[in-house]
Amino acid sequence: MRIAAFGEVMMRLTPPEYLMLEQTKELRLDFTGTGVNILSNLAHFGCQTSLITNLPDNRLGDAAKASIRQLGIQDHWIGSSGDHIGSYFAEMGFGIRPTQVTYQNRRSSSFGTSDAAAYEFTSFIEEIDLVHICGIALSLTDDTRNAAFDLAKKAHEKGVKVCFDFNFRPSLNEKHGVLFMREHYEKILPYCDLVFGSQRDLTDLLGMELTESLEPSQQFEAIVHEFMAKYGIDHFAGTFRQNEGDKHYLSGFLADSERVVRAQPREIINLDRIGAGDGYAAGILLGVVENWSLEESVAFATANGVLAHTIQGDVPLTTRRQVKHIMEHPTVDLIR
Amino acid sequence: MRIAAFGEVMMRLTPPEYLMLEQTKELRLDFTGTGVNILSNLAHFGCQTSLITNLPDNRLGDAAKASIRQLGIQDHWIGSSGDHIGSYFAEMGFGIRPTQVTYQNRRSSSFGTSDAAAYEFTSFIEEIDLVHICGIALSLTDDTRNAAFDLAKKAHEKGVKVCFDFNFRPSLNEKHGVLFMREHYEKILPYCDLVFGSQRDLTDLLGMELTESLEPSQQFEAIVHEFMAKYGIDHFAGTFRQNEGDKHYLSGFLADSERVVRAQPREIINLDRIGAGDGYAAGILLGVVENWSLEESVAFATANGVLAHTIQGDVPLTTRRQVKHIMEHPTVDLIR
Amino acid sequence: MRIAAFGEVMMRLTPPEYLMLEQTKELRLDFTGTGVNILSNLAHFGCQTSLITNLPDNRLGDAAKASIRQLGIQDHWIGSSGDHIGSYFAEMGFGIRPTQVTYQNRRSSSFGTSDAAAYEFTSFIEEIDLVHICGIALSLTDDTRNAAFDLAKKAHEKGVKVCFDFNFRPSLNEKHGVLFMREHYEKILPYCDLVFGSQRDLTDLLGMELTESLEPSQQFEAIVHEFMAKYGIDHFAGTFRQNEGDKHYLSGFLADSERVVRAQPREIINLDRIGAGDGYAAGILLGVVENWSLEESVAFATANGVLAHTIQGDVPLTTRRQVKHIMEHPTVDLIR
Amino acid sequence: MRIAAFGEVMMRLTPPEYLMLEQTKELRLDFTGTGVNILSNLAHFGCQTSLITNLPDNRLGDAAKASIRQLGIQDHWIGSSGDHIGSYFAEMGFGIRPTQVTYQNRRSSSFGTSDAAAYEFTSFIEEIDLVHICGIALSLTDDTRNAAFDLAKKAHEKGVKVCFDFNFRPSLNEKHGVLFMREHYEKILPYCDLVFGSQRDLTDLLGMELTESLEPSQQFEAIVHEFMAKYGIDHFAGTFRQNEGDKHYLSGFLADSERVVRAQPREIINLDRIGAGDGYAAGILLGVVENWSLEESVAFATANGVLAHTIQGDVPLTTRRQVKHIMEHPTVDLIR
Amino acid sequence: MRIAAFGEVMMRLTPPEYLMLEQTKELRLDFTGTGVNILSNLAHFGCQTSLITNLPDNRLGDAAKASIRQLGIQDHWIGSSGDHIGSYFAEMGFGIRPTQVTYQNRRSSSFGTSDAAAYEFTSFIEEIDLVHICGIALSLTDDTRNAAFDLAKKAHEKGVKVCFDFNFRPSLNEKHGVLFMREHYEKILPYCDLVFGSQRDLTDLLGMELTESLEPSQQFEAIVHEFMAKYGIDHFAGTFRQNEGDKHYLSGFLADSERVVRAQPREIINLDRIGAGDGYAAGILLGVVENWSLEESVAFATANGVLAHTIQGDVPLTTRRQVKHIMEHPTVDLIR
Amino acid sequence: MRIAAFGEVMMRLTPPEYLMLEQTKELRLDFTGTGVNILSNLAHFGCQTSLITNLPDNRLGDAAKASIRQLGIQDHWIGSSGDHIGSYFAEMGFGIRPTQVTYQNRRSSSFGTSDAAAYEFTSFIEEIDLVHICGIALSLTDDTRNAAFDLAKKAHEKGVKVCFDFNFRPSLNEKHGVLFMREHYEKILPYCDLVFGSQRDLTDLLGMELTESLEPSQQFEAIVHEFMAKYGIDHFAGTFRQNEGDKHYLSGFLADSERVVRAQPREIINLDRIGAGDGYAAGILLGVVENWSLEESVAFATANGVLAHTIQGDVPLTTRRQVKHIMEHPTVDLIR
Repeated sequence: MRIAAFGEVMMRLTPPEYLMLEQTKELRLDFTGTGVNILSNLAHFGCQTSLITNLPDNRLGDAAKASIRQLGIQDHWIGSSGDHIGSYFAEMGFGIRPTQVTYQNRRSSSFGTSDAAAYEFTSFIEEIDLVHICGIALSLTDDTRNAAFDLAKKAHEKGVKVCFDFNFRPSLNEKHGVLFMREHYEKILPYCDLVFGSQRDLTDLLGMELTESLEPSQQFEAIVHEFMAKYGIDHFAGTFRQNEGDKHYLSGFLADSERVVRAQPREIINLDRIGAGDGYAAGILLGVVENWSLEESVAFATANGVLAHTIQGDVPLTTRRQVKHIMEHPTVDLIR
Repeated sequence: MRIAAFGEVMMRLTPPEYLMLEQTKELRLDFTGTGVNILSNLAHFGCQTSLITNLPDNRLGDAAKASIRQLGIQDHWIGSSGDHIGSYFAEMGFGIRPTQVTYQNRRSSSFGTSDAAAYEFTSFIEEIDLVHICGIALSLTDDTRNAAFDLAKKAHEKGVKVCFDFNFRPSLNEKHGVLFMREHYEKILPYCDLVFGSQRDLTDLLGMELTESLEPSQQFEAIVHEFMAKYGIDHFAGTFRQNEGDKHYLSGFLADSERVVRAQPREIINLDRIGAGDGYAAGILLGVVENWSLEESVAFATANGVLAHTIQGDVPLTTRRQVKHIMEHPTVDLIR
Repeated sequence: MRIAAFGEVMMRLTPPEYLMLEQTKELRLDFTGTGVNILSNLAHFGCQTSLITNLPDNRLGDAAKASIRQLGIQDHWIGSSGDHIGSYFAEMGFGIRPTQVTYQNRRSSSFGTSDAAAYEFTSFIEEIDLVHICGIALSLTDDTRNAAFDLAKKAHEKGVKVCFDFNFRPSLNEKHGVLFMREHYEKILPYCDLVFGSQRDLTDLLGMELTESLEPSQQFEAIVHEFMAKYGIDHFAGTFRQNEGDKHYLSGFLADSERVVRAQPREIINLDRIGAGDGYAAGILLGVVENWSLEESVAFATANGVLAHTIQGDVPLTTRRQVKHIMEHPTVDLIR
Repeated sequence: MRIAAFGEVMMRLTPPEYLMLEQTKELRLDFTGTGVNILSNLAHFGCQTSLITNLPDNRLGDAAKASIRQLGIQDHWIGSSGDHIGSYFAEMGFGIRPTQVTYQNRRSSSFGTSDAAAYEFTSFIEEIDLVHICGIALSLTDDTRNAAFDLAKKAHEKGVKVCFDFNFRPSLNEKHGVLFMREHYEKILPYCDLVFGSQRDLTDLLGMELTESLEPSQQFEAIVHEFMAKYGIDHFAGTFRQNEGDKHYLSGFLADSERVVRAQPREIINLDRIGAGDGYAAGILLGVVENWSLEESVAFATANGVLAHTIQGDVPLTTRRQVKHIMEHPTVDLIR
Repeated sequence: MRIAAFGEVMMRLTPPEYLMLEQTKELRLDFTGTGVNILSNLAHFGCQTSLITNLPDNRLGDAAKASIRQLGIQDHWIGSSGDHIGSYFAEMGFGIRPTQVTYQNRRSSSFGTSDAAAYEFTSFIEEIDLVHICGIALSLTDDTRNAAFDLAKKAHEKGVKVCFDFNFRPSLNEKHGVLFMREHYEKILPYCDLVFGSQRDLTDLLGMELTESLEPSQQFEAIVHEFMAKYGIDHFAGTFRQNEGDKHYLSGFLADSERVVRAQPREIINLDRIGAGDGYAAGILLGVVENWSLEESVAFATANGVLAHTIQGDVPLTTRRQVKHIMEHPTVDLIR
Repeated sequence: MRIAAFGEVMMRLTPPEYLMLEQTKELRLDFTGTGVNILSNLAHFGCQTSLITNLPDNRLGDAAKASIRQLGIQDHWIGSSGDHIGSYFAEMGFGIRPTQVTYQNRRSSSFGTSDAAAYEFTSFIEEIDLVHICGIALSLTDDTRNAAFDLAKKAHEKGVKVCFDFNFRPSLNEKHGVLFMREHYEKILPYCDLVFGSQRDLTDLLGMELTESLEPSQQFEAIVHEFMAKYGIDHFAGTFRQNEGDKHYLSGFLADSERVVRAQPREIINLDRIGAGDGYAAGILLGVVENWSLEESVAFATANGVLAHTIQGDVPLTTRRQVKHIMEHPTVDLIR
């Protein structure tokens, strides 16, 4: 199974040891992005992966490509255009102090200024079996919207599976209202086979309504299946976060046309939560492409998502061996 | 409101990543001190702040001033004398291992060897509305005692508000007994408007007595109001630390002539507790100079004190936005 | 003498130990810019300095302001707008390998998107005696051109001295040709009192012509005085770089209406040459505002420029004591 | 009391800040090993200690010896042979993610290729009162087995106390079965005075049997005393780890010929658990050589073992003052 | 042109800032080796490259592969065996203090213990056009000799070009004498098309003799052509190092069947000379596979070799653009 | 030969990568001092060495002792008193920018406040053959003068060789004039066997006069022998520094009662010149205690002094093998 993703590569700059930007001149540089995160994790699970995006043709673009290769992702579909990589600064929180992310100018990045014409989607699609399209593309610019639609449509027509996540960010959509965004989501969904999202995406973004006569858990199942049926979607998945006293738990669900299966919640111990959701997504994708049962998929994806919270940086670098190990030996704290 | 402080600037040298001094050759250098901490926090709250102290006229003194400016404090009242900055090494503890602070020779520092004649207090006072005097000055040397009294007296006479904290350190007073110290505290208190301290400062240092016939909580209120009345003090404030099982809580109080108000305790998650008390003090000072209610002041100050425990180093660098955020959204762990 | 500057604040990100971007994840963050560099150096010489610019109202903007204060520059004229700081990555060269600078998106920075209306120039001018305007503003955007003209005009009208540098960067002017730029330079020069530039700026940018009948050194003097007379400029200054075998030398000139004085060349030993030209400019500015002889000014400025090459980062942090020391004791390699 | 140890010196290479090997190029180098750990801790308790081992005669061997001296251990019995130091990489875990140790080629190290003839045991024994022999020597190579037996025999014959730990590592014994190992353990035990191990070592390795008719706690006492009587052992000690909900506890026991005493369990807060068991062993050794009561010994050793979990690296660097402090003031989190 | 290499991957551990091992606990980890170096450089020149070797199937092997991919080399022919990667520590010299390399146990590495049967050479050869075999394989172990012969033979038979370098290291051949080594070199040379070596390799290793009746420069040409004719070699290349006063120069030669062309020497400014020879080799390989003239090849290769001395680490990461830039603009020290 | 030293241990705090104090928060901590430097070098040459000094009984004193042991020096004569270690900050220069050392309060250190009564000199002397006394002790405080005299006298009386260096620092003697210092030098010299100093020490400090009728080189020999005869000194040694164009050279001399022998100058390439003079002294001491010829001694000492300039930090860590290597193979820049 050859898995690809279309999405933005970002620079992440992080001060060491929980310091704030004012407190240090030392930063750690990583290259990240939803597509990068998911593909890297799948590559660590043994899949062949490839990213399609644009980067500037300069020293920084070269360094980004080197980093992407290091993560296990093929870089030969990465093109050159523009002269900017979007960046963000992550001041890591501690205890009650939240992690603070400050973005720098995503819209004018090489990715943000590339439309469909900037990519060779037609040849690209011939080399892959599944493509993940990050929903951020629908929020970013007219160019990225245009490219995302074009890719989804071409892939769908050629029988390449399309995986999509809602990834709605209010901060990126202050100008456009919900109706503008709904229109675009509704345009891309018919091309999609596997979608990541939440109940709130269905109600608030798509304007669907819960059947209040049903019990709460049935309400969720009902709206999920209504959504999947409406757009012809094979799988729909997402996560839940719960708090119980001081403790935080991650759980998730995966639905096919017949069932919605929820995972046993797992406690989150948090080293770096940015990108941890991509760990859940990568786990689900692995289960779906390898035809695991829904139960196996959500259990593996949840364990992987919890592990992703314990890894520095956005990119979940777990292997199957590591995920299996914490599923089978949850109390072992030293392996040698 | 132009707020100033009189106090010592110290160097803090900290090994990285919880290492002990024997384990590393890498140290992080910060400039700190009660006055520095409180002023920097107030500057981050938007106040205009200025430090009066002495530093050596050498590369180290220049680096200290640069750091103080960086923290948001004006440095034009910092004079030159002596050739030494007091320092301390902080080996950060973990779990049951306590943080270990080792001081190096505070008394012979530029600050420790400067008496009132070494400062231009008269002109200084004309530029400010309130001055914080750290009680460490009463414990350090004859010179610092002399300077503290002179400044408190001059400020009081000119109508500049005087804020004072007890800050009694037994380790700095091994030579002089409690009676020696009591005499000096009694000498400075009549000049003071806002004082930081604890019940034990009133009983053990000043020799005041609890009215045992009252209920415990009333005992505290009674002695506080007796103390305030005796010295003509407008506000008295301080913190409580409590343990409950494994959990640690911070709370605090603020008294005016009529009431003593206590804050709701907040759990402490501890990254670096040195200087965290100065976060509480800065919060109270902000409330007092902006005429907030006692309730608002203690709530803000406690939240700020708890936040200060989650920041590396002594200096609480919180902004109003951050404090308000954890008061209103205590469970959010990622802001973007 | 209260000296101010108008210009862009940039982030500089530098890998350690001569590593290239591909080779490391560790970067050092500095805030820099021509105005920052010159003002910081003048502050280290004892002048009161202030920067006027715009920065984003976020954590990064706050960190930039903290850094600027640390350098000795007042930050109260720094306003807020936009959400981006221009950045560049500096891969430090070694031997024959040149230092490689990669810029990221300067035009959409807070500075690049602020026109005259975004600043309170009228009040600002009342607090200063001299303002430095970096010529980059003429190359960057319509907004920065507009702001630079407005400031130069207002300052000139109020009798505040205007200092300007050509700072022409072909890479920033690929779209606009020389004629477009000439028009803008000709528009600002009549407001200027002190200008930094080179012979090539006069010939290639302004289209002036050398008097070929003169001897080469007289050609230079003649065109300089013709230029100064034409625009009513009091002082014109700049640097020369020469190579002799393996050795590199820095020299400079300063002209008033009567004479052009050249400095004795000094050998350059290069640790970090970015921003070293700003060290020469700061030296000249000090001499001019303190009415030194032309000879004293160029000697001091050249020594300072050479020292600036031996300091990490763009910002020349030299003091008068350091510059004097290398002028008087050039062979001392250890001071204690 | 002059205490010595015979054992392997290893290099430990650790990424910073919980990073995994793939995520960083920065490693911290420490020299470690059971003997190094125990002796260094005893040296910090004030004992005179000495290590006998072999290291390569190269820059790395010299650096290892410098590090061993730094830890407080005399290095004049460290000989030269071979050209390799065994190493391991420790990727520190976080929360549910376990610490992952990857060994590199221990068997061909200088230690692994040195048999009894490579050491001057006879002279060495004359300078010491007690020698600790790490059981790893029985698992490593024919050469290390040979050397361990020879040293144990010679020490025993000369009246030097022999301390031995089972330290059985299945991963080092994949080739040889339990019976092969049992034979070697049975061969060395008659020379030993103080042994560290667990009930499982007695049953699984030595093939001893529990008396099922007794109550569980009596079963343990009975087999311990049977084991001690059989081999003429004076003291037998070891640790227990328990989990209760999310909490982990360390406890331990120490037996003499009459009693088996267990320590009060203490909660473990884990910074780095590698080598923490050596903290318990060092505490017991101190108690035994100073003739403390069994109760005092296990209490001190358990407190020390718990402290060892809060120290970066394998080597427990605690002093008596630190251990006493947490025993007497367990809630103090800042000492100054 | 698909270029591959067969050779060892080593870990290089380097203290920062010219420190010696005794002086620091911080090390930088790089993965290197002649094959890695040459392929990475060729990948940066735009070639498709692939390494065939064996690494342990553990965390360290995975990290090595990630690093190799990052350098631009495909890793899908890297197999798993053994449990060890050879390593070396590089204490960087300064001035008269030489760089000191200390090796750790190369022979028992995964590469050192893999013979021809451990690789799928037959399929591998089908995917490539040229393979580089590092001569270290002839010195290391019987297994590596066996693998190198087998690969050279198979490649030669299938028409895949074989590139070989002598790379004779006396320190690896203390046991075997020159005659043993000569036999193995003579065995592999008939399969080779492009060879890297020196006059001394021909005389001392192969026992060839100079024609003393010729002039020195003709002697060299004569023996080179005799050597190439004897073994049917198309190209022979190598470097010269010369000193002139304090200055060091690099030059090189490239011979085809008709001519021996020498490059103009270039001065070496040395940041890290380890691996710099591989920069020359990569330059020659590029010229040969792209059919440049001998003159162009040696000029480019020498410039590249000199650049490689200015890059930290073994791996020459230069691009065509960088090499061309220093060839055309040798005095530019800042590019922006 | 058991060699000891009496002298101050200082902390050295150094910013990384040529940064100045204002530019960084990262410092490297080393423990140093003339005695530490010389003994560590002699220990690396294979001598048994021991330091006698006082350090505070706290975490910093313990860390200092650990560092001293690491350097190869025995620490059992290091006592406890006071609460302060003198420190200095070293901002490393580059090119024309000199290294800048800023001292912090040496006089109130544990060493500065310890007189003869604070040491057990009588027992100490019984364990050693030669003791080095650093002349700084004569400049520091009455206590250190008192201790130095007492030790020199007792050692001399017991036949232990006394080695002394002038080490006159004007900055430490601003209060006392030359006559005060002369008196103290004259008091200690009669106890000394080997002295390090310069012609200027003899003329300016001791007030001796050159015989102007002699030729310059004979003047030096004459005054040296006059000095040695007057105080009964066996050996007198020192260094010369010369500049020739841009190049710096180190040379040195060693005199016995008959001859004054000068070394061939060697070029200095400077990484860190602090403490490099101690490398020369250690070389001379080795030659003297091993009875080498004067020629061998000065050649070795000069080579060692030049090497010491290429090592980070004050402490020359060279081995005999390294010194011999650069004497025999001065052009080798890579050893493997």
